[in-house]
Amino acid sequence: MGYELLEVGYAEGYATITLNNPRRRNALSLACMQELTAALREVGESSARGVILAANGPAFSAGHDFADMAEGDLEMMRKLLRTCTTMMNTVQEIPQPVLARVHAIATAAGCQLVATCDLAVASTEASFATPGGKGGWFCTTPMVALSRNIGRKRALEMLLTGDPIDAQTAADWGLINHVVAPERLEEEAMRLLSAATRGSFLSKELGKQAFYAQIEMPQPLAYAYAMEVMAAASQIPDAREGMRAFLEKRKPQFEERP
Amino acid sequence: MGYELLEVGYAEGYATITLNNPRRRNALSLACMQELTAALREVGESSARGVILAANGPAFSAGHDFADMAEGDLEMMRKLLRTCTTMMNTVQEIPQPVLARVHAIATAAGCQLVATCDLAVASTEASFATPGGKGGWFCTTPMVALSRNIGRKRALEMLLTGDPIDAQTAADWGLINHVVAPERLEEEAMRLLSAATRGSFLSKELGKQAFYAQIEMPQPLAYAYAMEVMAAASQIPDAREGMRAFLEKRKPQFEERP
Amino acid sequence: MGYELLEVGYAEGYATITLNNPRRRNALSLACMQELTAALREVGESSARGVILAANGPAFSAGHDFADMAEGDLEMMRKLLRTCTTMMNTVQEIPQPVLARVHAIATAAGCQLVATCDLAVASTEASFATPGGKGGWFCTTPMVALSRNIGRKRALEMLLTGDPIDAQTAADWGLINHVVAPERLEEEAMRLLSAATRGSFLSKELGKQAFYAQIEMPQPLAYAYAMEVMAAASQIPDAREGMRAFLEKRKPQFEERP
Repeated sequence: MGYELLEVGYAEGYATITLNNPRRRNALSLACMQELTAALREVGESSARGVILAANGPAFSAGHDFADMAEGDLEMMRKLLRTCTTMMNTVQEIPQPVLARVHAIATAAGCQLVATCDLAVASTEASFATPGGKGGWFCTTPMVALSRNIGRKRALEMLLTGDPIDAQTAADWGLINHVVAPERLEEEAMRLLSAATRGSFLSKELGKQAFYAQIEMPQPLAYAYAMEVMAAASQIPDAREGMRAFLEKRKPQFEERP
Repeated sequence: MGYELLEVGYAEGYATITLNNPRRRNALSLACMQELTAALREVGESSARGVILAANGPAFSAGHDFADMAEGDLEMMRKLLRTCTTMMNTVQEIPQPVLARVHAIATAAGCQLVATCDLAVASTEASFATPGGKGGWFCTTPMVALSRNIGRKRALEMLLTGDPIDAQTAADWGLINHVVAPERLEEEAMRLLSAATRGSFLSKELGKQAFYAQIEMPQPLAYAYAMEVMAAASQIPDAREGMRAFLEKRKPQFEERP
Repeated sequence: MGYELLEVGYAEGYATITLNNPRRRNALSLACMQELTAALREVGESSARGVILAANGPAFSAGHDFADMAEGDLEMMRKLLRTCTTMMNTVQEIPQPVLARVHAIATAAGCQLVATCDLAVASTEASFATPGGKGGWFCTTPMVALSRNIGRKRALEMLLTGDPIDAQTAADWGLINHVVAPERLEEEAMRLLSAATRGSFLSKELGKQAFYAQIEMPQPLAYAYAMEVMAAASQIPDAREGMRAFLEKRKPQFEERP
């Protein structure tokens, strides 16, 4: 598939999806979100072990494109937000860990995208905001992801003020995993993604899927579910190989990604 | 309406509700909670853009008044706690952002009140505790608000020990937004509330209401709900004006609060 | 009851359960988990006011014992994980506060055990990991406890990478309450547990039980429940004594644990 608003590359077992519409500050237009969903699905079907989500230009992503929507009617807006939610869900549904590599400002649905990724590292030059709160259109869907990543008072401060937080604050609050100097961003992103993709691919896939399922459940249901997932997962060849290798003090040999 | 245990003032577009029973350390007696609920509703109906909740005297609030309750029977206690819960819910139900400006110690239901507000700033002289845990009556309803603001281990430490935490710790844990020197408290409270009330009032009202609704839902339901709210919100004049002003690089003109 | 894999001691009103299988790094074998559940229940029925969960040897606990499971079939694995979940639930079900005193590395179900305890203090020599993520068998049930203690991005980093975090990071993230130098660990554990067990035992028992019940509920249900618990709790003699003593400015006399 060809993409106009982003680039998809594969190297050394990893996929990188790069938002590539710098002039529009990587706005999440309808077309961009459709491409991003398609790219995530393509990567999800590929043999890549992990995914980096990056961006070119002066912003990571400025969120929805007001040029798209200032005159949009309800039907058009519902379609736009449904497309956006499908894209966000796809990030969490594909089997590989998805890491946001944030080099610059991420706002509104762009901030939501970072909150939605499994992992995130940012440069000290990055910042994060949900600016709808200081305008006329509250960041209601970004709030869903944001308020599941950071505490209530902090989420409400970002949502109501619309003011940006810097990358160190985002790390302190748990919105991102790590913050590094700009020249170290690529290295740190690859270090974390490499660590997050060691071992059995199938085991990791089951783990990511189970994470997002159990986190929505009350604890007793989460345990009922997690016990069955983990017991069944113990029967796959990679689990047995991992345990045997540990007991035999040798390096395990896991199955290749099909 | 006249209030005996608190003061309600309006200035420059903001309302301030001040607990004013210093001799009783602003205890949340039945009468005080009824007045506070009425004041919140009055302010909620007013044209104020935001609300500061403050207090006079040596304590922000000492929580329930044992003088009220030491001999109370079950019926009386249920009424007291129901009145308290109604008051707490009212804080989150009124359309404006409510900011707790905490100059001194807030304990038990007083600590719950801070946890319940949308935003909170405190002086370095403030502290926070749920002291029921070291007495004979566990802070069970304060726990509901507290454990939705901070992590489990920290909430259990406060609840089980009853010991106070200082304002900096409260900020580090996310119970409050910011901590400043006592002489800067009023300025910081107004700075944050001003930032939190910029832009369209109606948009903010929809946003606050949606925040507390979606946070109770599993993520798929939260998205289903938030999409509809945000799509509908895009059709209000303030949303269109915000987008058009952004595209036309001019300052938006939002509607006045009716 | 005699225990082979752990020690149970009582002193000065407190119980200490010590994992005591240093050669197997206190692995949570089926036998160990059955003993630990029995010990927790014994302690739960005792007159101890609080419980310290500690361990001997170079590790706090290495989690499940691969020697047990590398050849286990589905039925055996389900039994093992059900036994493990029952043990974890028992920690939260017994009336006393349970504090993990972590002197060394806690991994997989060992890390889950720390996450499950009401309170935790660790030595600077301790560390925490869910290493299934870098092997072939993802830490699915440990994830249930871990992801209810710390933020999503941090939980996913631990789960996907399997890498350990040090004790200071665990404290910063809220997985444990405090971190101290090794020589101060026993003193700090007893300081926190003493503080957490002051006051009325019955009040504290109601509080612990209510904490884990309400935390699973949406806020409106949590308040409906907590109001009834707290109103009823106001009628027990210890609650009345606590309030009267406060009003009379004297030290309360609470009932002895039956």
